[in-house]
Amino acid sequence: MKLNLNADLGESFGAWTMGDDAALLPALDSASIACGFHAGDPSIIRQTVRAARDRGVTVGAHPAYPDLAGFGRRQMDIAGEALEDLLIYQISALAGIARVERWPLSHVKPHGALSNAACADPKLAICVANAVRACDPDLILLAPACSALAEAGAAAGLRVAIEIFADRRYAPDGQLLPRQQPGAVIHDPAEAIAHVQAMLAQGGLISASGGVLPTPVHSICVHGDSPAAVSMAAALRDALHVAGHTLAPLSEVLDKGTLNAP
Amino acid sequence: MKLNLNADLGESFGAWTMGDDAALLPALDSASIACGFHAGDPSIIRQTVRAARDRGVTVGAHPAYPDLAGFGRRQMDIAGEALEDLLIYQISALAGIARVERWPLSHVKPHGALSNAACADPKLAICVANAVRACDPDLILLAPACSALAEAGAAAGLRVAIEIFADRRYAPDGQLLPRQQPGAVIHDPAEAIAHVQAMLAQGGLISASGGVLPTPVHSICVHGDSPAAVSMAAALRDALHVAGHTLAPLSEVLDKGTLNAP
Amino acid sequence: MKLNLNADLGESFGAWTMGDDAALLPALDSASIACGFHAGDPSIIRQTVRAARDRGVTVGAHPAYPDLAGFGRRQMDIAGEALEDLLIYQISALAGIARVERWPLSHVKPHGALSNAACADPKLAICVANAVRACDPDLILLAPACSALAEAGAAAGLRVAIEIFADRRYAPDGQLLPRQQPGAVIHDPAEAIAHVQAMLAQGGLISASGGVLPTPVHSICVHGDSPAAVSMAAALRDALHVAGHTLAPLSEVLDKGTLNAP
Amino acid sequence: MKLNLNADLGESFGAWTMGDDAALLPALDSASIACGFHAGDPSIIRQTVRAARDRGVTVGAHPAYPDLAGFGRRQMDIAGEALEDLLIYQISALAGIARVERWPLSHVKPHGALSNAACADPKLAICVANAVRACDPDLILLAPACSALAEAGAAAGLRVAIEIFADRRYAPDGQLLPRQQPGAVIHDPAEAIAHVQAMLAQGGLISASGGVLPTPVHSICVHGDSPAAVSMAAALRDALHVAGHTLAPLSEVLDKGTLNAP
Repeated sequence: MKLNLNADLGESFGAWTMGDDAALLPALDSASIACGFHAGDPSIIRQTVRAARDRGVTVGAHPAYPDLAGFGRRQMDIAGEALEDLLIYQISALAGIARVERWPLSHVKPHGALSNAACADPKLAICVANAVRACDPDLILLAPACSALAEAGAAAGLRVAIEIFADRRYAPDGQLLPRQQPGAVIHDPAEAIAHVQAMLAQGGLISASGGVLPTPVHSICVHGDSPAAVSMAAALRDALHVAGHTLAPLSEVLDKGTLNAP
Repeated sequence: MKLNLNADLGESFGAWTMGDDAALLPALDSASIACGFHAGDPSIIRQTVRAARDRGVTVGAHPAYPDLAGFGRRQMDIAGEALEDLLIYQISALAGIARVERWPLSHVKPHGALSNAACADPKLAICVANAVRACDPDLILLAPACSALAEAGAAAGLRVAIEIFADRRYAPDGQLLPRQQPGAVIHDPAEAIAHVQAMLAQGGLISASGGVLPTPVHSICVHGDSPAAVSMAAALRDALHVAGHTLAPLSEVLDKGTLNAP
Repeated sequence: MKLNLNADLGESFGAWTMGDDAALLPALDSASIACGFHAGDPSIIRQTVRAARDRGVTVGAHPAYPDLAGFGRRQMDIAGEALEDLLIYQISALAGIARVERWPLSHVKPHGALSNAACADPKLAICVANAVRACDPDLILLAPACSALAEAGAAAGLRVAIEIFADRRYAPDGQLLPRQQPGAVIHDPAEAIAHVQAMLAQGGLISASGGVLPTPVHSICVHGDSPAAVSMAAALRDALHVAGHTLAPLSEVLDKGTLNAP
Repeated sequence: MKLNLNADLGESFGAWTMGDDAALLPALDSASIACGFHAGDPSIIRQTVRAARDRGVTVGAHPAYPDLAGFGRRQMDIAGEALEDLLIYQISALAGIARVERWPLSHVKPHGALSNAACADPKLAICVANAVRACDPDLILLAPACSALAEAGAAAGLRVAIEIFADRRYAPDGQLLPRQQPGAVIHDPAEAIAHVQAMLAQGGLISASGGVLPTPVHSICVHGDSPAAVSMAAALRDALHVAGHTLAPLSEVLDKGTLNAP
């Protein structure tokens, strides 16, 4: 079975470093790159695109609320056309830099509080899907499993790649448990691998209470900003290989047939 | 003789309005739109592109130093690749929004202190030319007459449109007199028209001291943020028509022959 | 009866102007000055404090969410100590500039979406009250009538001045009707004066549906950023004089006795 | 001989960490805290003030150009009253938070490109001195040796504490060698200690070419953002103790007599 491993990269800003992108890249198939609104700046974006290209890792835009001070993790009341405009701006900036580096954008994946909101609220999800399609209908929308965002992307005619999180626990409705909740974030690589393998085996999200929500799975996300990110991603990649999976870019995973189509 | 009339638009920000773009547009052939670093935000950019498109006014990116609080008018020490990255980000954001609105970018024109620096410093001028070419070698560089920026654009193989300022006085070396200097800014439309007509007649910049620096002229700039901008632009347009000039997009002015090639 | 007339000032930013502070000041007793997070910058703050001082208008801090692009009018998920820290920073910056200009701060009044949130949510209201008291327990909290904010201020031992809005309609529960709702904002001075006089006569808020919520009233707010602000404030001031009220600083209105104590 | 050891703290921002303040604090007498313009945010400022207070380390404001993306290290063309306003805002915000934490501000020390500019340009130096005095004439100005800034502070009647840099080399005129120049930054603790001891023994700055510029020395600065900061500061503190110096707050070092008065 073809699978994709993705992480969020380029989340440094100016003089500040976040995560260890260089060490993480060899473990990835796809990188979602911060667009300058929650993290990243023009030079960091360009360097991250180059590093991903040199490793053959496909790149996507990782747009967010305009909130550097809050790292895009604070919910903001932005909706409708204003939200679409924010997203088109960020995706376009990323796409342009990627084009300059001859390593075109493959996908879009919303960040943080914006992602959480678009997974829960169909109106916001439609804004995201509209913005992606307006920029380029060939872009893949990388969306969490069982989310309003995935549904809106499919309804908009976009190719939608479904991701599960290796390092986050789920609520019974398939939403992520909030970061500040105990146990919401998985720090131990072995535990994350077991979590992923259980979900692949069951063919669905497994919530903290044990319930299963059936879903196709195209990609597995490891968060690049956690201290364990590098070792977790490398161990997960090995474990998936051992289990017989082929790791591939999103477009190849989506082409593999109708079984996992959203 | 074909000429172009341009102004800087989209310089509002969030809840704040700058200039009267709607009133100014009918007098223009080309609009240079703020990219969000000195002014403008994603919604204002998109609305400005739409308004220009609806009037048939071609649009360009108007990138700047990252200095909202200073409106991009304070010199900042940014050079080399960091400057190129800033420019590619801004031009890409503008180009993407323009593409979404099916009214593609025609040109790039640096703003404020960045423009002043790139007109005087060949190294910075090369950065600007490199960034424009990296984004799209078909973009026109709209550059002040007798500037290092115009030279760098031509050397980089870009089409360069040369502009003179209707509402600003020149120093003997062809640089703009600083805004804060008495007489540097022309507020009276009749005076601005006379200034422009004298320069067209002489085929060169006329400095405050009366000297003439020969230059081709493709476009005339009126600043959109001055109170007199609307009446000045309209009066200038009428005067140019009466004098027998044809007002046209930059690409048409540049196509008119070798006489005015930079 | 002693009353106070207040407005929000200093809401320009950098090169952008908002409202006509110079024209509005003569009609006011108190000015709440933007602190640089939703509007204002250090130079605008200082100039606004000076202008208020020269007119004998007392000044307060008008802190907000960190959202220049949204003018502080978009709800943001900031609470607890993080919110207190944001407020202490803004109040301290304003208080320091006011001290430099020898015109010390008299009050604090939250802005926009932060004010709306703190009026409806007692937990946020306590954060605001704590921040004001931590900065200086002698500061007056200027709070909307019938709000959780007014209650939290009183519970924290602060002097609380209760304000009603001349130019906004109320919901039956005493919250402001959202700006985007038709009729929520009153643009006609005569209508605003009638609205205020009815509330003073009834001794309570009058909602859009006609209900009355009893409340003391110490101050009347006119929004400084509306086009009608200047004429509305001047007309209201005249009408209050004619009706026999004495216009005074907040501290004098609060000293007038127990009748209107919150 | 009484001496002071200082470093710049609180240079994290939002989700990004800079340096290891907790480990550095025990080695310091004074901390200069970022004010939110080049680094720091309200919560980080408050936590840094608390941590310094709990260690008995005196705190100062470390104001900068408004340039988060450039960490305040890019020269900006801001001067005159606009610069004073920026400084008063930042110092006031810091002073207010320090007052709330009952650990009042002891000093002010400009950051990065602003410091470099104010050390070389007497006009900017006077702006800094004016701003400090306007905020509180009892604040100490912590200024580099042999700088226009130290002179302007003394001329303004401020107490001026003179600092030398343990980890930076000097040009023959006493200015710092630019960071990007090879050898400008000292990374080896032993080398830094030798550099400091030589300057204390000679009673002056020692430039990279070996020349000596006589100066009093009240404080020694270690940069908190370098990887070696913690070990360098601890080793330097030990070496100064061994050499018979008493480490003390700035005010005590300045009180020790006229010998080292600037």
